[in-house]
Amino acid sequence: MIKVGVFGASGYTGFETLAVLRKHPAVEIVFATSESAAGQKLSDLYPVAWDLPLTPLSEAPLANVDAVFCCLPHGASMPTVIAARQAGVRVIDLSADFRLTNAALYQKWYGLPHEAPALLAEAVYGLPEINRVRIRETNLLANPGCYPTSVLLALYPLLKTELLDASAPIIADSKSGVSGAGRKPTLKVHFVEVNENLSPYNIGQSHRHVPEMAQTIANLGGPGDKLIFSPHLVPVSRGMLSTVYVSLADDLPAAAAQSLYAETYAAEPLVWVLPAGQLATMAHTQRTHLAVLSVTWLHPRQLIICSSIDNLGKGAAGQAVQNFNIMFDLEETSGLI
Amino acid sequence: MIKVGVFGASGYTGFETLAVLRKHPAVEIVFATSESAAGQKLSDLYPVAWDLPLTPLSEAPLANVDAVFCCLPHGASMPTVIAARQAGVRVIDLSADFRLTNAALYQKWYGLPHEAPALLAEAVYGLPEINRVRIRETNLLANPGCYPTSVLLALYPLLKTELLDASAPIIADSKSGVSGAGRKPTLKVHFVEVNENLSPYNIGQSHRHVPEMAQTIANLGGPGDKLIFSPHLVPVSRGMLSTVYVSLADDLPAAAAQSLYAETYAAEPLVWVLPAGQLATMAHTQRTHLAVLSVTWLHPRQLIICSSIDNLGKGAAGQAVQNFNIMFDLEETSGLI
Amino acid sequence: MIKVGVFGASGYTGFETLAVLRKHPAVEIVFATSESAAGQKLSDLYPVAWDLPLTPLSEAPLANVDAVFCCLPHGASMPTVIAARQAGVRVIDLSADFRLTNAALYQKWYGLPHEAPALLAEAVYGLPEINRVRIRETNLLANPGCYPTSVLLALYPLLKTELLDASAPIIADSKSGVSGAGRKPTLKVHFVEVNENLSPYNIGQSHRHVPEMAQTIANLGGPGDKLIFSPHLVPVSRGMLSTVYVSLADDLPAAAAQSLYAETYAAEPLVWVLPAGQLATMAHTQRTHLAVLSVTWLHPRQLIICSSIDNLGKGAAGQAVQNFNIMFDLEETSGLI
Amino acid sequence: MIKVGVFGASGYTGFETLAVLRKHPAVEIVFATSESAAGQKLSDLYPVAWDLPLTPLSEAPLANVDAVFCCLPHGASMPTVIAARQAGVRVIDLSADFRLTNAALYQKWYGLPHEAPALLAEAVYGLPEINRVRIRETNLLANPGCYPTSVLLALYPLLKTELLDASAPIIADSKSGVSGAGRKPTLKVHFVEVNENLSPYNIGQSHRHVPEMAQTIANLGGPGDKLIFSPHLVPVSRGMLSTVYVSLADDLPAAAAQSLYAETYAAEPLVWVLPAGQLATMAHTQRTHLAVLSVTWLHPRQLIICSSIDNLGKGAAGQAVQNFNIMFDLEETSGLI
Repeated sequence: MIKVGVFGASGYTGFETLAVLRKHPAVEIVFATSESAAGQKLSDLYPVAWDLPLTPLSEAPLANVDAVFCCLPHGASMPTVIAARQAGVRVIDLSADFRLTNAALYQKWYGLPHEAPALLAEAVYGLPEINRVRIRETNLLANPGCYPTSVLLALYPLLKTELLDASAPIIADSKSGVSGAGRKPTLKVHFVEVNENLSPYNIGQSHRHVPEMAQTIANLGGPGDKLIFSPHLVPVSRGMLSTVYVSLADDLPAAAAQSLYAETYAAEPLVWVLPAGQLATMAHTQRTHLAVLSVTWLHPRQLIICSSIDNLGKGAAGQAVQNFNIMFDLEETSGLI
Repeated sequence: MIKVGVFGASGYTGFETLAVLRKHPAVEIVFATSESAAGQKLSDLYPVAWDLPLTPLSEAPLANVDAVFCCLPHGASMPTVIAARQAGVRVIDLSADFRLTNAALYQKWYGLPHEAPALLAEAVYGLPEINRVRIRETNLLANPGCYPTSVLLALYPLLKTELLDASAPIIADSKSGVSGAGRKPTLKVHFVEVNENLSPYNIGQSHRHVPEMAQTIANLGGPGDKLIFSPHLVPVSRGMLSTVYVSLADDLPAAAAQSLYAETYAAEPLVWVLPAGQLATMAHTQRTHLAVLSVTWLHPRQLIICSSIDNLGKGAAGQAVQNFNIMFDLEETSGLI
Repeated sequence: MIKVGVFGASGYTGFETLAVLRKHPAVEIVFATSESAAGQKLSDLYPVAWDLPLTPLSEAPLANVDAVFCCLPHGASMPTVIAARQAGVRVIDLSADFRLTNAALYQKWYGLPHEAPALLAEAVYGLPEINRVRIRETNLLANPGCYPTSVLLALYPLLKTELLDASAPIIADSKSGVSGAGRKPTLKVHFVEVNENLSPYNIGQSHRHVPEMAQTIANLGGPGDKLIFSPHLVPVSRGMLSTVYVSLADDLPAAAAQSLYAETYAAEPLVWVLPAGQLATMAHTQRTHLAVLSVTWLHPRQLIICSSIDNLGKGAAGQAVQNFNIMFDLEETSGLI
Repeated sequence: MIKVGVFGASGYTGFETLAVLRKHPAVEIVFATSESAAGQKLSDLYPVAWDLPLTPLSEAPLANVDAVFCCLPHGASMPTVIAARQAGVRVIDLSADFRLTNAALYQKWYGLPHEAPALLAEAVYGLPEINRVRIRETNLLANPGCYPTSVLLALYPLLKTELLDASAPIIADSKSGVSGAGRKPTLKVHFVEVNENLSPYNIGQSHRHVPEMAQTIANLGGPGDKLIFSPHLVPVSRGMLSTVYVSLADDLPAAAAQSLYAETYAAEPLVWVLPAGQLATMAHTQRTHLAVLSVTWLHPRQLIICSSIDNLGKGAAGQAVQNFNIMFDLEETSGLI
């Protein structure tokens, strides 16, 4: 059994990570931390029959674990990751703290200096479909954001074949369930404000996930600066759908577009490309760890990709465990299907 | 035009009261207060094209108004009501501060001493269907709670005819939309916690609306202490349905039960008794100022009354304006239908 | 009083039209028809205290009315409109039957021949913000679809100033509440299928509202064939938000973009352009007859317009009554605010 | 591996049963039937990556299976169960056809004569917490309805100790998610009719689950005829909460009430009694196979039991598989936790 700890158990991401790990056949959960609920049990925070004790972060027994999942907010994650790495523990970090390889860019978008720029070089961006080889070797895995996961999986087949028109905007119109906003009570997530409503926010190029996506697009040779990204809050608890509009540099017949996607992901255990004519919906992935993609061909130079994930599944905890499985040479879908 | 002010504009009740008053043909809104948003406009708080300025409570020009609607929380309402009465302004108080006539009972349930026990004698409990004559004359109207409105309208026909079995429990199983919990963000009203959930809370005899209902039941000669009241939070923004189970002291045929309700409320402009065989639902009253009742006869001594109101309509702002209309000799439904 | 009839009262659009007309100070409702519920009352179909009798279409007393609102499905609307025009009654048609001026195009998209091509020339497309003068004179008003209303209001300021880049796609990513799909029960609108889901459908250029939008864009001198339109079904009852991505032919500074929108609609009673920095949400227009727009400037040649309407308000019944008011020289917002 | 077939795969109950069985370590699914979708795959009906072929009922290879789960509607289930029993296959029937032991009572409530009264004697009512011993031996398991499961688990501790006041009503106010109404599209389950609404239906003693509950209450020595049962439709996809009000024949201290429930279910793997002071909510059981109960003591003769299940979990598919596990001497929670 691989011994793991989870930092930040009280949020939705931490709780979901624990829920997945609890059923994982090769995992033993050694500790779970919560600052706000230290001394309480998980069943005090969630309506679940699981009396898992919550320890303060400072008492987490790093010496007793092989790996940690860090589900703390950005900023708070950095010192914990540093401590874990110093203790020789492999880290899967679900925060944003190690996703951007450029420390200055991190400071620009997150408003605080990066405390461990040296570790940034070590960190691997955990999209298995793109980075599987490097993931296997890393000791510091930066788990992608939910929006980037949904958008990058939609773009990857076009990026690896260099089919995108580098002069045209890439438009990602994304719709997210409310758990993506975290469990902290704010007016923005008040039931009455969300219910019967749909709200765009931080549209264009102002959301913190834009540089994360732009970095990966650029790393793959694409026009990262052409990304226009518009997130919308939708009255569902879980789920994410990105409708991605792309212009191509060369003519691509409809059948070739479909094949490109189908073949790119044919061997991927957690990506499902729908048959031509079907459209991905939130329901395709809700409460799963899958990504589901559909390809709509408009004309030889224009596609619409619909990309569905559960923001807590493939968009967070599920992908974290997938990465963990790869890092520890386990069956990649262990605990996930 | 009757000049009015509204205290506590930023909450759902205050906003709804303003929205009703804005369309009232005989009303001029002179001021609206907000402590947390003083200096802002209503359009800064709500997605509405209404640049109504919000003043701090201390600057409310009481000398310029004929009446005030007080939508402050309990406790905060008392000093404001006292000041308004001292200024000779008629008051419609939507808080709980003047509903219980017994100051000691108030202290027991609300945890703070009553600051104006003398005014309690002056206050009239504003259920027009029961108290219309006294409402007309009063200068201090205690607007009922939403749950009490829905339950008391269900019981009133049996109370006035003394048909209730005084030895049997009166069971009111109530379901409320989330706006009844107020606009302050808490985990209880977080979208993800409410959505796809239904939660009982304070069931039995522990909710603060129990003494309010018991007082009116007792005033009408009924067994106030027999009330069992179970509120439930439901994933809708607005609406309230109380399913009320009553045992009768004497046999009442089905047709007589239906007639009793139909006749009791025949002249009431804002109560609608459904024909026999139909059941009241939340949809019957949502975004209206109506109460809708249905009578289900089980056997000669057992009825189920379903009672529907909008918690912000007949359960708060609508009833407040109905009472205001009565107090100022206006058409009772002015601004309400 | 202007005497009106409503064809097709049982659907959501017909019911909403009746609800608006009922409160209209200058209107007398003479009849309402329903084939499926002929002989019943409106209160048999909806949880509302309104015993309006429903007559079969064949018994509608056209001779007794000045105007009719036709809320029948496309195809079914044509013969009714023809009959009403033959009777000299002015018609507001909420179906798609008289929106496309080209009969062949109608047949292509709706799969049946047009029965009254001559009337197509008489029909005026009822977007008051664009066509007010012609609306005033017409006897046959083709009320726009909900999606076209939301998208065309977003594009109109750029069309009238010829600012759109004619070679770039116009991308309208629209999100609609479920009432837009009608009241007929199908699996698509089953609660369990819609709730906690979000579904794209007919994306690209395959939705029937595409030719309607393309026609108006082209009439205004724009690149109608460049429109990419992606509707999504969202788990809300009412509401519509279109996120519209446009490329410009010339540089437009941010302040100029905001001014263009603000000034275009400054005198419009039912369009509200939000201040710079705010974003339109469904909540801005829900259960109103307004359109609310926001302008997000990305760079001098790229804007995002968020356009919000209630699909049954400005998207159907509200706009129909606005057009009616114009046609009958009434206050344009009579019955609507 | 135990070979099983599922009749009626296209409904929510059938689909959920398949989803549970798919992950069951000791089960091989041999066939799944659908009349409406024969020849299609499960992925044609649901947004799921599972190309399970659907066969017509008449082609189900009964000879190849050890057990069948029958998820057909009542009436349709009977002939299929008869055929399966004649083929020597053990049956778990999720319909209502074998729950009532009295054929005349079945005919009264379901409006059709029972075709196999002899099999009624063989059938065992599948509430494991009450009937585990008989379940182990039976070849025909009548899986309980969702409402009866939630209400009977709430009453059982009082029934087995004969604590109920036989002269007082037992009031079960139940709230159910919409999947309980089935997947067939009707106006009752149209999103717009359900959303933002809460509707009582068949309240009192008119719902078909009343005789099912009354039978078990009476079998356990209780006053079955005193049950008043009021179901309500709630805008959630899955979940059920019953708030059950009971009067006791003798005084029961609060601690004893809590202990009675805790001890009754202490060894039950799928029933969780909450600690005193907590209340069961829908969220406690959603997407689980658990029942969760809370005990609220009002006075020595009055309790409120809140009983939560997922209507498709412990209320249908989960309980069916629990019964299957018992029948085949498997770990009782195999496939369920």
